[in-house]
Amino acid sequence: MAEHHTQPRRPGSAGRRGSAVDPELLISAARAGDTRALGRLVSLVENAAPELRRVMKVIAPMTGRARVIGLTGAPGVGKSTVTAALIRCFREAGLRVGVLAVDPTSPFSGGALLGDRVRMQDHATDNQVFIRSMASRGHLGGLAQATPQALRVLDAAGFDVVLVETVGVGQAEVEIASLADTSLVIVAPGLGDSIQAAKAGILEIADIFVVNKNDRPGAQEVVRDLRTMLAMASYGEGRWKPPIVSTTAATGEGIGDLVLSIDAHGAWLASSAELANRRRARAREEVTAIALAELRQRMGGMPGESRLAELADRVAVGDLDPYAAADELISG
Amino acid sequence: MAEHHTQPRRPGSAGRRGSAVDPELLISAARAGDTRALGRLVSLVENAAPELRRVMKVIAPMTGRARVIGLTGAPGVGKSTVTAALIRCFREAGLRVGVLAVDPTSPFSGGALLGDRVRMQDHATDNQVFIRSMASRGHLGGLAQATPQALRVLDAAGFDVVLVETVGVGQAEVEIASLADTSLVIVAPGLGDSIQAAKAGILEIADIFVVNKNDRPGAQEVVRDLRTMLAMASYGEGRWKPPIVSTTAATGEGIGDLVLSIDAHGAWLASSAELANRRRARAREEVTAIALAELRQRMGGMPGESRLAELADRVAVGDLDPYAAADELISG
Repeated sequence: MAEHHTQPRRPGSAGRRGSAVDPELLISAARAGDTRALGRLVSLVENAAPELRRVMKVIAPMTGRARVIGLTGAPGVGKSTVTAALIRCFREAGLRVGVLAVDPTSPFSGGALLGDRVRMQDHATDNQVFIRSMASRGHLGGLAQATPQALRVLDAAGFDVVLVETVGVGQAEVEIASLADTSLVIVAPGLGDSIQAAKAGILEIADIFVVNKNDRPGAQEVVRDLRTMLAMASYGEGRWKPPIVSTTAATGEGIGDLVLSIDAHGAWLASSAELANRRRARAREEVTAIALAELRQRMGGMPGESRLAELADRVAVGDLDPYAAADELISG
Repeated sequence: MAEHHTQPRRPGSAGRRGSAVDPELLISAARAGDTRALGRLVSLVENAAPELRRVMKVIAPMTGRARVIGLTGAPGVGKSTVTAALIRCFREAGLRVGVLAVDPTSPFSGGALLGDRVRMQDHATDNQVFIRSMASRGHLGGLAQATPQALRVLDAAGFDVVLVETVGVGQAEVEIASLADTSLVIVAPGLGDSIQAAKAGILEIADIFVVNKNDRPGAQEVVRDLRTMLAMASYGEGRWKPPIVSTTAATGEGIGDLVLSIDAHGAWLASSAELANRRRARAREEVTAIALAELRQRMGGMPGESRLAELADRVAVGDLDPYAAADELISG
């Protein structure tokens, strides 16, 4: 739960109100640029707090404006360096930028190497940048539910661009990455399995390939391998063909090209039905995740909470099979 | 879906029967050592096939014997080399060994570097070893549901030890790793973020720490860091304190010590209530996952399938909030 931006406390700020939470007040404060209020809204999302229903109801009409960009790649490819370089570009263009890091190895999540931490400080005093690491609340599907809702909050708070950083290994992470308007898949030379890992699950979601650490030996080979792979895929008329952009994010090299590619993809999205499709798919996932969480809660809340323990006992010793147990759990 | 073990077809083998599936026949063939039949049973699990209910019912009394060992660690720490070395040790002790690889970067999953592939060939002709990569069927929670069921199948088929390899980054993977009787968390020097990544989510699940690539510079520092970390944690009386084992799995160095530590943990599990606790927790997760999948299917199967699309549309354009949509979805 690293919150890199702090703001001087202001009298009357909704952020100061201790434990009392007034959703409407928090929302208007967040929209007025109060990042403490925004941080508390995101915490409501992470904790699946009861106030969330009211928050979501109030902000529904305020959403749909933010551009959502996903950044995915294995540990070590330089995702956070690319993120930092993109923040800089978007800030230079006068945009407000939000970052959600869904990655246990991200410097945003406390897994920082010193260099990354220092690099992030560049933005720590800029109140047009909000960086937040999404913490898992430990149960499966938690992040898949929380991330689209946090996106929704940042969108309503008036951020122009929201970057979502995911590690790209692991099912939930791929799922989350697929929720972006534009998905960047980042690879780098010198990591034997970086493209292999990419192949395993995230190639389908790539709108743009970024070959980072372009100054390292092997970068050309990585580009060539990606080209070969793309040449084998078939892209029908009107379909987007993912470009390959080489960057050295640490020096900023290639980041301008990357932003141009992101813009080109954005223009394509807007001109096709794809933007609406993706946002509909995102909403569908979000609604389904909430409904499932609700159902799960209902299951846990039944007299069957103790029932589940007994059923699990019987399954553990081979006395009952798990399907029969699930049936009993559902029918209560 | 790499299946490294193939067996000559035998007349009358259940594995030969094309698309017809007789669960009872498959099960008895698998128990008799027919790995093609076993492979088909695991495929039923992956595909959540309707026959699975019957399979699970029949095998329930045959389960509970296999030792489940989880191996978790970031890409590059040498998980699969450790796995291969453990297979060799267990085979020398005359045990039947199953491997489930839940890791898109694993050589078992097709993300192989040549060296790993070659190393695995050692076991490819040994019909007491069954290696299977678990493929995700694309929806969240799929692997969390399939992995315990695949474990159950291998257990019923008479494997003494089942190794479950997970990448250890990503929520679903941590969840799966936590299902093992004994969880190994593998780290290595020279990967800046290997321990950082470990810290982020998998330390709590470690029963044994493996510092692999012990011949590389920095290995001693990694051991020292882990020791410091463990010294800060408090282990009450009767609790298991995770040992740190240094290995160079590629040469086999330290693997004997690792097996001794695994055995010691097994003895501790058996002497405490912890083994029963863990298996109960595994069953609970399994039953809950099946129940949720069933509920999800019911939701999808309702007249509300088209309803969901309409609700998602309204959420996407800000006309409805996701909680209200979820309510409508549940109440149908």
